[in-house]
This record gives sequence, C-alpha cells and structure tokens, in this order.
Amino acid sequence: MTDTKVYLLDGGSLVLDGYHVYWNRGPGGEVRFPVYSILVEHKDGRFLIDTGYDYDHVMKVLPFEKPIQSKDQTIPGALALLGLEPKDVGVVVNSHFHFDHCGGNKYFPHAKKICHRLEVPQAANCQPFEHLGYSDLTFSVEAAEARGQAEQLKSGQTKANTTFEGIDGDIELAKGVKLILTPGHSIGHYSLLVEFGSRKPILFTIDAAYTQKSLETLCQASFHIDPVAGVASMRKVKKLAEDHGAELMYSHDMENFVTYQTGTKFYG
Amino acid sequence: MTDTKVYLLDGGSLVLDGYHVYWNRGPGGEVRFPVYSILVEHKDGRFLIDTGYDYDHVMKVLPFEKPIQSKDQTIPGALALLGLEPKDVGVVVNSHFHFDHCGGNKYFPHAKKICHRLEVPQAANCQPFEHLGYSDLTFSVEAAEARGQAEQLKSGQTKANTTFEGIDGDIELAKGVKLILTPGHSIGHYSLLVEFGSRKPILFTIDAAYTQKSLETLCQASFHIDPVAGVASMRKVKKLAEDHGAELMYSHDMENFVTYQTGTKFYG
Repeated sequence: MTDTKVYLLDGGSLVLDGYHVYWNRGPGGEVRFPVYSILVEHKDGRFLIDTGYDYDHVMKVLPFEKPIQSKDQTIPGALALLGLEPKDVGVVVNSHFHFDHCGGNKYFPHAKKICHRLEVPQAANCQPFEHLGYSDLTFSVEAAEARGQAEQLKSGQTKANTTFEGIDGDIELAKGVKLILTPGHSIGHYSLLVEFGSRKPILFTIDAAYTQKSLETLCQASFHIDPVAGVASMRKVKKLAEDHGAELMYSHDMENFVTYQTGTKFYG
Repeated sequence: MTDTKVYLLDGGSLVLDGYHVYWNRGPGGEVRFPVYSILVEHKDGRFLIDTGYDYDHVMKVLPFEKPIQSKDQTIPGALALLGLEPKDVGVVVNSHFHFDHCGGNKYFPHAKKICHRLEVPQAANCQPFEHLGYSDLTFSVEAAEARGQAEQLKSGQTKANTTFEGIDGDIELAKGVKLILTPGHSIGHYSLLVEFGSRKPILFTIDAAYTQKSLETLCQASFHIDPVAGVASMRKVKKLAEDHGAELMYSHDMENFVTYQTGTKFYG
C-alpha cells in the first residue's frame, strides 16, 4: 500500500419517504437510496468508515425501510470481493451510530474504533425521536446495556472490544485522511475528506447531506438533532469542497451512486 | 368584565401532510387541521393571543395548505360575532410568528404587542428551513424590511405601531393569565395558561403540541428549530397541566377542536 486508495463497499439499499429525505420539502412518496461504507487503504493501514446496515436488524425493527442486500453487499461479502476479511481492517471509524452506519461493527472486535466523543453517550441515552435511528446497538456493549438491549449483542462482544476512542473537532486520521466535524444530523456526526497523490480530493458528506440536491438546497434530512447546526455543517462542507477543489460524494443519493465505482474498482 | 372569560376565535383550517404533523412518524397523507386565536376577557382588559392566518397570503405563498376560511373566520369576522371590533382589543400577544399565528396582526395597529424577545429578530433573519413558516411579515415593519418583503406591509403600518415588547421566561400577563415559555417549535414559542374563578384552568399548548396525540407520544411537528428543546417543552407542558389540574387544549387538533366552544360560547 503506497498511494492512498478508496474503495466503496456497496451495502445494499433502503427506502424512506421523500419527506424524510428532504425535510419538510419532499415531495412525498417512496425513495430507494443506497447505503455504502468507505474503505481507505493508506500507507499507515486500512481504515473503514462506517459499516452499513444489518439486514436482520432492519427486518426486525424497521421493515418498512424495505432492505435489499445481497451477500456481496454485507460487510464480509463486500470485503471478500477485494480478497479481504474483517481482520484485515485495523481501524473502524463511525461517522455516527444510526443503524445504517454501524450494522457491521460487530465483525471488527479486533479493530481500533473511533467516533465522536458524544456519540456513544447519545446512543445510550438518546432523545425520544432518535430511538429508531439509534436502534442497532451491537456496536457497543455500553450503549446496548444502557438501553436495555443487551440481547442484541453477539457472543464474544465485551466492553473492552466495543470501546471507542472519542474524538472532537476536525481530526487528521492519517496523512490526507481527515474527519470533518459536521454535527446536526446527529450530535457528533463526521464527514470525511480524503486526499490522494494523483487525483483530486474526495469529500464524503456522509449524512450531513444525503444527496447532491440536499446540499445544493441546504435541505437536510428530517432525521436530525440540531437543524441549525445541520445547516452550518452543510455550509462548512460546501466551503471545504471549494477550498480543496474536492469532488463531493453523497451518502444516500441513488442517482449519483450508480455512477460511483464500487466492488474492485477504486479511487486513487 | 369581572370573572375571566376565554373565547376561541375560529380561524378556519389548513392542510398538511401527516409527516409534518407527526415528525418522522406520520402516517403520511393529507391532514386538515383547525387554526384559532384565543381572546381573554379579563378585568384588566382584553388580550388576544395569536391572530390566525391571512387567506390571501396563504393562497399566494402556500396554496398547497388549501385554506378554508369563511368571513366569520377572519379576525374581524370572528370578533364581530361577539359584537367587538379590533379596536376593542388592548393587547395582542403572539405565541410565535409563523404565518398561521400572526396573519391578523395587521388589524391591531393601536394595540400593545407582546412576544418573546427573540421572535422578531428570528423572523427577520430566519434559518433557511424557516422561510415558509415566517412568510407573513405584516406583523412587523422591521422584519418585513429585513427580509426584503416591505411590499407585504399595509398602508398605515409603521415601525412604531408594529413594535413589540420583548419578553423572556414565564410571565404573568395579568392575574391568572400566564405565558409559559415552550421553545423548540420556534425559538421563542409561548404556551398559555388561564385560570378562572369557577372552572379548572386551561393550558393551551399552542404549537408546543399540535394535537393530544403529539403530547401523549412526545412527537412534535416537523416544523421546529430545536427538537431537543421541543421535547423538553412538551414535558414542561404535561407537568404544568398535572400540577395545576388544568384542562389541555391543542392548537391544530381537529378531532378535539370540534368539541371546543367557539363563536359566542366561552370558557369561564
């Protein structure tokens, strides 16, 4: 591993109402959207940002989101396409702990784990309107126990192997791999900026902007804890992309996602 | 005027999607809901809390809310049913400045005006997601000019006769007439508690809880600036109603509204 490469791990898709994708704006009606995780191969190691959703969890708790996920779209399946296994990933970062960003954390007991310092406490003691967002608690024994959901935990999960390093502010994870604090959607949400040797940077909005239209219209998702912060975060992302000449990639934008490189293709 | 009386001024109805009435919960689909203002006849004078929506404004700016409003459901019309004119109202209080709560303010240039100290500045410089909420700016020359909407203003409206006394915290407007600070839906939202000589108090949630179901499920409207504060305000309203043995009345709850006394009937 010399030059940084980014692989997108296709995680399948889900459905929301348009009023959820575009807060108070819509139009209403079913919108199917992609879910993916971001694998960064860097000279300092492999970093996985987010881990998608767990099909069984969604079918049990939020079946109305109508998950479609093939075996290749699970975390182990998507890694296998690259000839990798979960144990080959050294660091897992969660942008936040909504169920569609942490469902595969359970495959990485060995990995170092990083998130914003407020995200685990929030998942453990969330607002009434966040219960479904923070419904897959398999990423943290502490959060699962606090929410009375210890039965979700898998054999072998312990406090020790589900403990996170809590960070705050903008952080350089490795040279050219930057976590950009973009709260609003969740209390400690992070976006991701990756710089390369030979192509322009990519700024992954993650859920600061589900889609290109979200960012262009400053219309956040209806899932949020602080919409004023959400607007400020979208403005921060826009400015950062301009300042760095970065390509923007969105988390849940099917129209753009179908043009993204997935599987064995990569950016870098 | 000896014992306090409360008249509800029926202001017609509007339509929203169920996902707007019940944030992220729904179900979706059209919901027609009532709009009304609250006239308090008190030994110290007549207080009007909120002034409904202006039909022409809604048809021009938000026609998709499908207003239905008869002449008797305008502010002058509803007052006329009681043998009153706008000039008979000495004090106008706005719970907040969303268009369906301030559309009739223009009829009260003579009245003393009261609102939370942050509401006029917010209407004048609102978040992108608040533009439609704060779209009728006829209540304030200052706000209309700041938003470049001076053409909305009516002949005779001046800064002097559209200036508000800004308040903060819980305030006793007159003996037994209490404004209860319940932010979240808007930055300086107020609910209203009225005590009577001979019946139990009434706590008007106003938009801290559109409906009884909203309050029971702690599910605020999708229109809000601070949903964490919104939940805290709902809890405050619930506790206050319990502590005072108060009857709860909701702002936009058609099922309950049809049981409320309107027209010449009153509470007290």
